Amino acid sequence: MTQYQKHCALPGRLVMVGFGSIGQGVLPLILRHVDIKPQNITIVTADERGHGEADYYGIKFVKEPLTRDNYRAVLEPLLAKGDFLLNLSVDVSSMALVELCAEKGALYLDTCIEPWPGGYTDASVPPSLRSNYALREQALALRAKLGRDAPTAVLTHGANPGLVSHFVKQALLNIAEDTGRDAAAPSDRAGWAALAQELGVKVIHIAERDTQVSSIPKKRGEFVNTWSIDGFISEGCQPAEMGWGTHEATFPPDGIRHDFGCQAGIILNRPGVTQRVRTWTPMEGPFHGFLITHSESLSIPDFLSVKDADGNAVYRPTTHYAYHPCDDAVKSIHEFAGKNYVQQETQRLLMNEIIEGVDELGVLLAGHEKGAYWYGSQLSCAEARQLVEFNSATSLQVTVAALAGMIWAIENPDRGIVEAEDMDFQRCLDICTPYLGPVVGAYTDWTPLEGRNKLFPEDVDTSDPWQFKNIRVL
Amino acid sequence: MTQYQKHCALPGRLVMVGFGSIGQGVLPLILRHVDIKPQNITIVTADERGHGEADYYGIKFVKEPLTRDNYRAVLEPLLAKGDFLLNLSVDVSSMALVELCAEKGALYLDTCIEPWPGGYTDASVPPSLRSNYALREQALALRAKLGRDAPTAVLTHGANPGLVSHFVKQALLNIAEDTGRDAAAPSDRAGWAALAQELGVKVIHIAERDTQVSSIPKKRGEFVNTWSIDGFISEGCQPAEMGWGTHEATFPPDGIRHDFGCQAGIILNRPGVTQRVRTWTPMEGPFHGFLITHSESLSIPDFLSVKDADGNAVYRPTTHYAYHPCDDAVKSIHEFAGKNYVQQETQRLLMNEIIEGVDELGVLLAGHEKGAYWYGSQLSCAEARQLVEFNSATSLQVTVAALAGMIWAIENPDRGIVEAEDMDFQRCLDICTPYLGPVVGAYTDWTPLEGRNKLFPEDVDTSDPWQFKNIRVL
Ligand SMILES: NC(=O)c1ccc[n+]([C@@H]2O[C@H](COP(=O)([O-])OP(=O)(O)OC[C@H]3O[C@@H](n4cnc5c(N)ncnc54)[C@H](O)[C@@H]3O)[C@@H](O)[C@H]2O)c1
Ligand SMILES: NC(=O)c1ccc[n+]([C@@H]2O[C@H](COP(=O)([O-])OP(=O)(O)OC[C@H]3O[C@@H](n4cnc5c(N)ncnc54)[C@H](O)[C@@H]3O)[C@@H](O)[C@H]2O)c1
Repeated sequence: MTQYQKHCALPGRLVMVGFGSIGQGVLPLILRHVDIKPQNITIVTADERGHGEADYYGIKFVKEPLTRDNYRAVLEPLLAKGDFLLNLSVDVSSMALVELCAEKGALYLDTCIEPWPGGYTDASVPPSLRSNYALREQALALRAKLGRDAPTAVLTHGANPGLVSHFVKQALLNIAEDTGRDAAAPSDRAGWAALAQELGVKVIHIAERDTQVSSIPKKRGEFVNTWSIDGFISEGCQPAEMGWGTHEATFPPDGIRHDFGCQAGIILNRPGVTQRVRTWTPMEGPFHGFLITHSESLSIPDFLSVKDADGNAVYRPTTHYAYHPCDDAVKSIHEFAGKNYVQQETQRLLMNEIIEGVDELGVLLAGHEKGAYWYGSQLSCAEARQLVEFNSATSLQVTVAALAGMIWAIENPDRGIVEAEDMDFQRCLDICTPYLGPVVGAYTDWTPLEGRNKLFPEDVDTSDPWQFKNIRVL
Repeated sequence: MTQYQKHCALPGRLVMVGFGSIGQGVLPLILRHVDIKPQNITIVTADERGHGEADYYGIKFVKEPLTRDNYRAVLEPLLAKGDFLLNLSVDVSSMALVELCAEKGALYLDTCIEPWPGGYTDASVPPSLRSNYALREQALALRAKLGRDAPTAVLTHGANPGLVSHFVKQALLNIAEDTGRDAAAPSDRAGWAALAQELGVKVIHIAERDTQVSSIPKKRGEFVNTWSIDGFISEGCQPAEMGWGTHEATFPPDGIRHDFGCQAGIILNRPGVTQRVRTWTPMEGPFHGFLITHSESLSIPDFLSVKDADGNAVYRPTTHYAYHPCDDAVKSIHEFAGKNYVQQETQRLLMNEIIEGVDELGVLLAGHEKGAYWYGSQLSCAEARQLVEFNSATSLQVTVAALAGMIWAIENPDRGIVEAEDMDFQRCLDICTPYLGPVVGAYTDWTPLEGRNKLFPEDVDTSDPWQFKNIRVL
């Protein structure tokens, strides 16, 4: 039997809320790398999925969907100082759980900021308030309220949001080194922002191409994906959203600024699943990804902003997700949009029926003197399965990042609410790297102007390839 | 052995140019329903595809790609008065072959107006000249030059263009009957146009949903479709194009009128594969189709135009294709667009590996007092295979229409150049119907405003659901 390194010990109890593709995938990793007794773990979830796996590991499985009304009653008996709440559910308010943990002195981690049901699609509130910008500002307000030395609560720490923020730091250092600059890691936020500015990074894409395919063709009226379909539909129906760079010359005609908060980002007046953007990964080359909103589209540019004395940004990179989900999800989105966002009747989360493919997930930093640089993981499904049971390529990139975040939180238990940018990127990458398959850095001279304006006249800005106007697919 | 009805005899020779999915599918139908000797048939094609089938039927197979330089030398020995040239190729100029047939006194049929290679994507000419409008105007000019009593040359007579123009006439009669009007077929063009105007038809979609699926998942770098991939890519890269209705209040910002010809249609300054439109079929309900250009988007509205004394249209329906190809083609288009229309390295034309699905192909006539009415064929692949060997649902709808056009041409040998609208719709439908699976008429109260303007504010024209502005997906 392989002996895995225990990175740390959790003497207290662990409560896992939600046990879908990510919950099921992270459990074997926790049991491998955190010194914890299975009898100290409880799963609280909304359906039977994963019950067999929980039994296999001898872990308590409670099927009890959490609601605004019952979450305190269900969770309070399970949480005290030194315990850990790992939230991998959908439809349960992250903020409610963070507050509860702070009260109890328990540690916390989630992989996205989730509202109670309907929060993403409440048409009675303006799009600005249904954005991740608004959810993140709530979290920042709670951070201030709880204090910077409250029990550590790691927000949005999966693959993306999460791991990709560490990739960004590593990529900045790599570009610094490759352009003959000092490649030592800055010691604080201002240092990282100064480095990005000095390098001239105008654009950061979270550029992902998932090529996993299933042996079973998608049926009509079925949404197929390699991770939470509810999660994907929720974020896909939020406004398309991005960090808005200081180099942008043209504000989008349907762009909306927020009248509150840090001002790092804007939204477009449309759901993310209907907006495509041009991007690039090493294996795929150029492709169209979807401009799905994500927390890192705000936390990264906020972290990398350089401001003048009046607090106005003088440097900030345009930052957003450019997501090409698996091909069956592209078809599912087409069908879903064709029904005006009325959900398909059935869902299929791909797991065992995946026959091949890679989740190529990384960050594309562009506009600097070497053009564009992609840095990330090219994990195949076959390798993921060999590495950790109950995982696909997609889930493993998330679950190992969640594991790393948990470990960092246990090691740093009094940091209050943190995002990936606030954590030790090197520690997290060290924990994750063995599980990411090939981790690759690649320069490219591709720009979104390549091959444009040929067959039909197009309104492009040739003075700067890295304008969002050029990246957006109209 | 089943005895099939011979609809007519062709005493002369038959030359088939091109023997891909449509050529291979039509041959058994011709042998069934046209009295002709297999030894009088010659296939001239560019590759080996279908060689086995030709051998099976004892038909001469010549692999000799036609070019501007060799087409006369290759075809002249094969064509004389009373012979028939059936053109089912890509990349061979329809106009060149029609002229040759007229010289020789031979009959002719094709299923689309094809230019010599590059004609669809010659970026050195403006989009207007790469449109089907321009190709059709060339054909109309040739019609005038050859005279209305030249040997019959049926243009653009497959399923669509072709059969769907006959569906439109039948649908007009059905709506007339269902709204208590005289349902006798008008005797001339003016009569049909007056009927459409009287009924208040504002919009005609060729609304198609192909649900055929393959057992083999699409690979990266592969374009998959149920009919000619070269053909689909060619027309998909032509400008999005439509007949422009007299009820339209808003001219598209990227719309372009032509400075020549009949003025029945306009183009948009973009390739059809990038423009989605809202439409509806009975089995699928609402969906997004692609606004791919087709000849019938011009011939139908031109045929149905009512003009004043000055020649200005006072009535014309907006007419266009709204095509949802098979799901694998939707993915192929997404990939193709992502590479700025650089063709994938490989193609796969689905035939034997289709495991299920229906090609639901019909016309949606909308804006009249009963809302919208779809009329068309819901042919499953299983039924198509049972009906005629070497066919799928998609090919059979085309091949039986080509057969019907051939028969009509043999029966009417001196009509010069004709489009479907100029032919006897009843005769064609009678020949086709046994091969179309369920032929269905269905009313719906669906409009493109259904479910709109909910999650995000949208710029819709609520005063008239059937404005193109509402139909277009932005
Ligand atoms: N940051 C990242 O990289 C990343 C990646 C993938 C998923 N995620 C997030 O992780 C979460 C889980 O993803 P997944 O793919 O495992 O989702 P999933 O849909 O497979 O599983 C969701 C789980 O939540 C449970 N659940 C639903 N409602 C609940 C309730 N009211 N109370 C308790 N449990 C409830 C379900 O029973 C299920 O076990 C989602 O929020 C998703 O957005 C983040
Ligand atoms: N109206 C309709 O409903 C309809 C439907 C489908 C296809 N079509 C048209 O029918 C045509 C054939 O479609 P398909 O699906 O059979 O296409 P396909 O791609 O399967 O076959 C095309 C055939 O043309 C031949 N060809 C190519 N270049 C040639 C050349 N230079 N000289 C001679 N032959 C050549 C190829 O060898 C092949 O046999 C296309 O033009 C297509 O647009 C019309």
